[in-house]
Amino acid sequence: MNRESFAAGERLVSAAYVRQGCEARRSHEHLIRLLLEKGKCPEDGWDESTLELFLHELAIMDSNNFLGNCGVGEREGRVASALVARRHYRFIHGIGRSGDISAVQPKAAGSSLLNKITNSLVLDIIKLAGVPTVTNCFVVPMATGMSLTLCFLTLRHKRPKAKYIIWPRIDQKSCFKSMITAGFEPVVIENVLEGDELRTDLKAVEAKVRELGPDSILCVHSTTSCFAPRVPDRLEELAVICANYGIPHIVNNAYGVQASKCMHLIQQGARVGRIDAFVQSLDKNFMVPVGGAIIAGFNDSFIQEISKMYPGRASASPSLDVLITLLSLGSNGYKKLLKERKEMFLCLSSQLKKLSESYNERLLHTPHNPISLAMTLKTLGEHQDRAVTQLGSMLFTRQVSGARVVPLGSVQTVSGHTFRGFMSHTNNYPCAYLNAAAAIGLKTQDVDLFIKRLDKCLKTVRKEQNKESNASGVDNYDKTEDVGIEDMALKLDNVLLDTYQNSS
Amino acid sequence: MNRESFAAGERLVSAAYVRQGCEARRSHEHLIRLLLEKGKCPEDGWDESTLELFLHELAIMDSNNFLGNCGVGEREGRVASALVARRHYRFIHGIGRSGDISAVQPKAAGSSLLNKITNSLVLDIIKLAGVPTVTNCFVVPMATGMSLTLCFLTLRHKRPKAKYIIWPRIDQKSCFKSMITAGFEPVVIENVLEGDELRTDLKAVEAKVRELGPDSILCVHSTTSCFAPRVPDRLEELAVICANYGIPHIVNNAYGVQASKCMHLIQQGARVGRIDAFVQSLDKNFMVPVGGAIIAGFNDSFIQEISKMYPGRASASPSLDVLITLLSLGSNGYKKLLKERKEMFLCLSSQLKKLSESYNERLLHTPHNPISLAMTLKTLGEHQDRAVTQLGSMLFTRQVSGARVVPLGSVQTVSGHTFRGFMSHTNNYPCAYLNAAAAIGLKTQDVDLFIKRLDKCLKTVRKEQNKESNASGVDNYDKTEDVGIEDMALKLDNVLLDTYQNSS
Amino acid sequence: MNRESFAAGERLVSAAYVRQGCEARRSHEHLIRLLLEKGKCPEDGWDESTLELFLHELAIMDSNNFLGNCGVGEREGRVASALVARRHYRFIHGIGRSGDISAVQPKAAGSSLLNKITNSLVLDIIKLAGVPTVTNCFVVPMATGMSLTLCFLTLRHKRPKAKYIIWPRIDQKSCFKSMITAGFEPVVIENVLEGDELRTDLKAVEAKVRELGPDSILCVHSTTSCFAPRVPDRLEELAVICANYGIPHIVNNAYGVQASKCMHLIQQGARVGRIDAFVQSLDKNFMVPVGGAIIAGFNDSFIQEISKMYPGRASASPSLDVLITLLSLGSNGYKKLLKERKEMFLCLSSQLKKLSESYNERLLHTPHNPISLAMTLKTLGEHQDRAVTQLGSMLFTRQVSGARVVPLGSVQTVSGHTFRGFMSHTNNYPCAYLNAAAAIGLKTQDVDLFIKRLDKCLKTVRKEQNKESNASGVDNYDKTEDVGIEDMALKLDNVLLDTYQNSS
Amino acid sequence: MNRESFAAGERLVSAAYVRQGCEARRSHEHLIRLLLEKGKCPEDGWDESTLELFLHELAIMDSNNFLGNCGVGEREGRVASALVARRHYRFIHGIGRSGDISAVQPKAAGSSLLNKITNSLVLDIIKLAGVPTVTNCFVVPMATGMSLTLCFLTLRHKRPKAKYIIWPRIDQKSCFKSMITAGFEPVVIENVLEGDELRTDLKAVEAKVRELGPDSILCVHSTTSCFAPRVPDRLEELAVICANYGIPHIVNNAYGVQASKCMHLIQQGARVGRIDAFVQSLDKNFMVPVGGAIIAGFNDSFIQEISKMYPGRASASPSLDVLITLLSLGSNGYKKLLKERKEMFLCLSSQLKKLSESYNERLLHTPHNPISLAMTLKTLGEHQDRAVTQLGSMLFTRQVSGARVVPLGSVQTVSGHTFRGFMSHTNNYPCAYLNAAAAIGLKTQDVDLFIKRLDKCLKTVRKEQNKESNASGVDNYDKTEDVGIEDMALKLDNVLLDTYQNSS
Repeated sequence: MNRESFAAGERLVSAAYVRQGCEARRSHEHLIRLLLEKGKCPEDGWDESTLELFLHELAIMDSNNFLGNCGVGEREGRVASALVARRHYRFIHGIGRSGDISAVQPKAAGSSLLNKITNSLVLDIIKLAGVPTVTNCFVVPMATGMSLTLCFLTLRHKRPKAKYIIWPRIDQKSCFKSMITAGFEPVVIENVLEGDELRTDLKAVEAKVRELGPDSILCVHSTTSCFAPRVPDRLEELAVICANYGIPHIVNNAYGVQASKCMHLIQQGARVGRIDAFVQSLDKNFMVPVGGAIIAGFNDSFIQEISKMYPGRASASPSLDVLITLLSLGSNGYKKLLKERKEMFLCLSSQLKKLSESYNERLLHTPHNPISLAMTLKTLGEHQDRAVTQLGSMLFTRQVSGARVVPLGSVQTVSGHTFRGFMSHTNNYPCAYLNAAAAIGLKTQDVDLFIKRLDKCLKTVRKEQNKESNASGVDNYDKTEDVGIEDMALKLDNVLLDTYQNSS
Repeated sequence: MNRESFAAGERLVSAAYVRQGCEARRSHEHLIRLLLEKGKCPEDGWDESTLELFLHELAIMDSNNFLGNCGVGEREGRVASALVARRHYRFIHGIGRSGDISAVQPKAAGSSLLNKITNSLVLDIIKLAGVPTVTNCFVVPMATGMSLTLCFLTLRHKRPKAKYIIWPRIDQKSCFKSMITAGFEPVVIENVLEGDELRTDLKAVEAKVRELGPDSILCVHSTTSCFAPRVPDRLEELAVICANYGIPHIVNNAYGVQASKCMHLIQQGARVGRIDAFVQSLDKNFMVPVGGAIIAGFNDSFIQEISKMYPGRASASPSLDVLITLLSLGSNGYKKLLKERKEMFLCLSSQLKKLSESYNERLLHTPHNPISLAMTLKTLGEHQDRAVTQLGSMLFTRQVSGARVVPLGSVQTVSGHTFRGFMSHTNNYPCAYLNAAAAIGLKTQDVDLFIKRLDKCLKTVRKEQNKESNASGVDNYDKTEDVGIEDMALKLDNVLLDTYQNSS
Repeated sequence: MNRESFAAGERLVSAAYVRQGCEARRSHEHLIRLLLEKGKCPEDGWDESTLELFLHELAIMDSNNFLGNCGVGEREGRVASALVARRHYRFIHGIGRSGDISAVQPKAAGSSLLNKITNSLVLDIIKLAGVPTVTNCFVVPMATGMSLTLCFLTLRHKRPKAKYIIWPRIDQKSCFKSMITAGFEPVVIENVLEGDELRTDLKAVEAKVRELGPDSILCVHSTTSCFAPRVPDRLEELAVICANYGIPHIVNNAYGVQASKCMHLIQQGARVGRIDAFVQSLDKNFMVPVGGAIIAGFNDSFIQEISKMYPGRASASPSLDVLITLLSLGSNGYKKLLKERKEMFLCLSSQLKKLSESYNERLLHTPHNPISLAMTLKTLGEHQDRAVTQLGSMLFTRQVSGARVVPLGSVQTVSGHTFRGFMSHTNNYPCAYLNAAAAIGLKTQDVDLFIKRLDKCLKTVRKEQNKESNASGVDNYDKTEDVGIEDMALKLDNVLLDTYQNSS
Repeated sequence: MNRESFAAGERLVSAAYVRQGCEARRSHEHLIRLLLEKGKCPEDGWDESTLELFLHELAIMDSNNFLGNCGVGEREGRVASALVARRHYRFIHGIGRSGDISAVQPKAAGSSLLNKITNSLVLDIIKLAGVPTVTNCFVVPMATGMSLTLCFLTLRHKRPKAKYIIWPRIDQKSCFKSMITAGFEPVVIENVLEGDELRTDLKAVEAKVRELGPDSILCVHSTTSCFAPRVPDRLEELAVICANYGIPHIVNNAYGVQASKCMHLIQQGARVGRIDAFVQSLDKNFMVPVGGAIIAGFNDSFIQEISKMYPGRASASPSLDVLITLLSLGSNGYKKLLKERKEMFLCLSSQLKKLSESYNERLLHTPHNPISLAMTLKTLGEHQDRAVTQLGSMLFTRQVSGARVVPLGSVQTVSGHTFRGFMSHTNNYPCAYLNAAAAIGLKTQDVDLFIKRLDKCLKTVRKEQNKESNASGVDNYDKTEDVGIEDMALKLDNVLLDTYQNSS
């Protein structure tokens, strides 16, 4: 409403009240102005009415929402379904343009602003999360793996002779595939066991660099966030090696924004050595739907090069999600989530330790991993392997998601490469184990339920291993705990036990 | 609500009415069952209540919506913002899994079903749109360009020696970039002028294949939908060449699903020769937001290979949009849109012809192009080039979107390759011209407004060229036509005239 | 967004595009300004984005949406559920104030504006629907019956001696109850049969007025919209009687806004005689949910008196619904609906005539009723009454809603008053019949389905009456017509046949 | 989705996962079944997905959502605007039927269920809030005042000779109007001053009953929730008087559900004497939008009689709001709100006490009022009255809503009755004062902001009274406190000072 509208309003109802309403509106506008001027995440989250006002204002700047528009192009932002238009707040044109996902669209000033502001907010959050010297970043509507692929494809043009990517092993298929898809040959560097932890074998890395020659190497591809007992790579040392040999360094920081330790490693790596880009998932760090990642770095022009490698427009949906989320939370809200996660990690850690000890198992000592924990599974009886797998299946059917059992000796071939001990990041980890993680958003009740259900499943598995029949074991499952879960357990425990294995 | 709930309901209100309500519910369920069993687009569109019931039912099958779930993984589908959860109908887990965008997710049976059904519906629609022998397809949450890149990256593994992509020229940056990003060298085949039309130079293609040798060629990358006076590539003949030389053939069918001529070319090409995959945009063909594409083909296993090249999960958002859209429209609704588009093409064509003749211009004769039209701009006066550009700018400021003026002699360098006559698909098209297209969803009022505004702009440009002042020209702009447009025109006409040039 | 925000936006993306977006925004604002200044229904409907912008702008003028508000009263517009806040567009304070439903609320300038504008739009629509001399009206969040009660309660204060209300009989319970609830004694004037039509007995009205004495009569309570064969009351003549005897006249125009004939009667009545207020349903005339009515009249101060009789605040929900609806439709959209209704009436009329004749029945000749039709049911066989009732039940179970069968001789006591021939508006209508109406929003497919199903039901009923078994009759029900309907029919036909009788 | 759909789903994705999804669905269904079977508010609130599933399931039981419905009645639940349909979750038919707002609608089994369940939940909550012996209640889509009117209109039929309503004075217009609108003469019983409190004059009530004669008295109309220093009426004693004289007793419990003291009074009154019905606002007690009330009582048949007095259907909107709210909160959530309110009352009370003493004012001692507080305003200087009014105005413009200043000697005439000392519930309260209330949903930050702003306003008012100019006073207003508030203050302080006076 403009001045004339307010004036007309004053004639309909009391001028004093309309003026008060009009002033109230200015508070919303003030927040919007601050956001546009500063490009920073507001400290306090916005309420829904400011947020929707803002989105609405942006949307009407896109040509598909012009009242007088006539479109005679091949892509005019027309929408067949009102449900679809509404769920996208009428942002239809996506982000980016032919040659550059960060480019401004003439037809869509609102979507373009949305894109710029989102990238700006996200940069601000990365800084506060522990990488203050980051210089540029952008949201890309692809998950982490494909985003890594985009980084590798960009590097190809700078290093035409390169064929290899040096990759300290992490048993997560999409990390491996990201290199294969980009057309490079991953050089797997096995991890070394230090205490319970699996850590980067720096000597092997450097030896491999020398062996292959720096020019033939596209980059080092390291990882921060990972399942225990693997721990984040030794980023500082890797960064120094990269600097020394003039090799690019791409960091897979998939769910590392939520952990100050991971972020600190990146910050330090960049300070003392070389990190060209680090890639993180939107969903895993910002509690939005799957489908977006942030590509960030310390060299403005390299990040721009990557954004210019994305051919064509792209979905604005992940950007919109993270924008809404960050404006709702505010930086204080996000910091609070980070703080709570740390506390939950301690809580999960201590409870899992206690439980494991009561079963003569052990919580692996992995102090360098700030998110994931592992508890040994050594005492499940004779048919150890089968029991480990069964435990995983039982947890799955009891609606424990994300817990992962890792049996010994699993072998898997991914894109032609055979991994021994797959899932455990090493050929021969000393024992089977179970993983649980304290990721952002975890609540006390999740931990409590998990410990309770794990306890029951462990009991059942052991009994069965002690030659008691499967049926009686299930009979002991406490029927009162969760409505409906029991039936499901009965039906599902007997489905192929390995289906869940790759579920995480 | 289950049987017990209905029974309880019967005790609260009359049994007869509850039973009638319960029966009514079965009609909705019946539609859902048919969809799941047949996997085809329903003939009649669903109403919103069936659609939302269906989405709701799917969503509660995902673990993040389980009432009793406890999640201790690193990605549990938690959402920080209720607004975000709601706009995604609580589908948070995305689609696909580590190694394969078409894979099923254990944590998300609902999202997995959504993904399968969407792909199935889309396949059904591609068949009815004119490619009945297509065997497989999938929706990928990337725009056309990046999807083409993914195809090329997949082919790399099958053709390790290949370096080149044969590409009949089309002046659209993201097409070109899709090859660059994948790391290949585009071999540009200039088009030949036949009458007004620019058509594929088949001899040059074959000569180039021979010159470079089939093994060094990754594929032929042809195009169907394009701006006149370029017309769709001679797919049949190209497909035969590809078959003869054993070269893969990828077709950019960006907005071709909407035109039976484009679809027919693909069907024929596959019948008589070789087409490995054809890629189309979701937004341009199905009136959904930008951000998705369909990769389709005739060889089931090759399409699966591509889907397995996408490393990691991906956004379900484009799939959800097209699912909602197709279920709302039904196949009859979609066919109706296709039919209306054809009619609108005739309407636009005849009106543009009439207008062009009244200005001593000419509608280019491009019968092979079923979507785009071009009208010459030869008579704008002395400062022809400046006038052409000004016309474009004026149309833009008067909220005509998608109309494109193409001046002579524009030169542009894209990723190191210099294109003479850029935008016109050839080094030296005989004249400048203006494009307009009849894309799906175009309405009569769009055509009418466009013709009206173009008429005025042409008048103004000519007058100015006849030495009349800019001011007087603008004065003659009819103030009554569109509220608010006039002011904007005054302000914006003088911004840099070339900003709009790449707007389409 | 204000000027500073746009300026900041220009620094983020191209100034030219932001300006174009900013100009586009002005078109929306222009529509809003016109609405506020003129208070008339826009000719063309608004699109959703303007509508939601407008509602959003109004809502942030309410104190519950002030960012800096602190509320220490007993009613501060706090909302516990975000779903609830959202569905009301965050209008929480309702409309009106202690003493007056039309009063302005200091805490809620936005809601107050919403209320004023809605009443203004509705007044505009009543004028264009055929009562150009109406001077005031307001939306009240009560259905027609309770709104009539409010009118009667208001009159009580002006006519303290009055005990009776003169009421030409119409067999609709809530009309009767509206008088009982207000504490008055309805004086039922039986209708007279003219041809097939039941019309107002003017002589009986006047005789009653004389008999009871004008001062003892609160008002005449007449009706326009009604089921055939009753037709609208003779409003002109009643209005003249009221004027002559100084008796107020309240018209129940429940669903009459949609029929120009009803509106014309009111206009004429007011011109030649006396009409104090006419009351119409929101849902029946404007296709919104049940729950609101419009009280309108020709004497500004009397309408204000009624609005001041409503003690306390009231729900804004019906006002919001009708506001959204009218702004979406525009006056042109509403006129189109009126026009289509007229056409559908002709369509229903001719099809029902044809069908009735094929069964040796007859469409009653009721030219004064512009909405409702009646077809005789004389030939259903021996057990006529049972057959009529069964027909009604069968239609209900086959999802024909709103069709009403009226058997002979039904007797019902409502609030102590016994009505013979209840549902037929007269003690002894010559025959049983079936009603169907062409109300606003009726579609051709409704008519077609109705005629088809009625045809089948009539066939079945007749067969059964001809001693054929019930089972075989149902066996003949065409199983292909409607999925799921058949089963229901089997189950429900045997529920108590009379349940549906009062369904309309 | 039914069994066949799930089976089809199992063929599309893994059977094990679909079964798990299907089982998960049963948890939602289980909650719904419990609700329908028990009719009680669930202890734990439902999450949005269960809630929306439930509403969706109900809605498709209404005939307007039948896929095969054809409607030929005058009211078929058609909706012109998709926005409107959506915001009502497609419940269009409202609640109730011709003669009874609690009746079941044949066309709308879903809406009927919604109505029944809502009333059942609300009854459950009234019991837990402190009136365990309540036997029946219903939600009516009218605010408290009109609902009281409906009670009085119902009583009229049982007490045809009654003309008067005995009414212990409470200065709230709609309470008074509720009696006037019903056509009765309120007999105002002045309150007596006990300490600072204004309490019911029981002797005056009984004397009046004797004077007028019980038969001429429709009922006693008492009040629980009210502004301090008035306190809730002595319900027990009034109920005994009513029982002794055979006079009905209607209690205005507007915002009393939130205070156990008010509820306890009702429970006790009904136990020892007579309470026929008690009426409470939905918005004030359940944090939903304005527009609904609950009429409750101890005699099932009397409450039914009232529900049968409502002529015609009514809006389902308030019922839907309270249903959503209660299901979201659960009884635990509601109890938590009640508990927090009590704590906030103590907080407000102590802070206001402290502040008042620092200004040599006093918090009135009103221990019987559990919600509202009053602080004296005696020391504002010479122009005491003007200063009091100015203080109110200043608070209003500084976005303090709900605070009410009560000057001495205000006289107002409502519907012909003149009230001296209006707003203070008595002719001559000893001093002016300011009210603040701790209503449900009040937060600590509201209290803090209120105290802070009140402090500043008091300072300013005093200074001005000490002959300092208005301008300088405003200059001292702390500019940093609230963005935008200052400007508003400047503009609005000078509008007519009395506009805010009736704002609460």
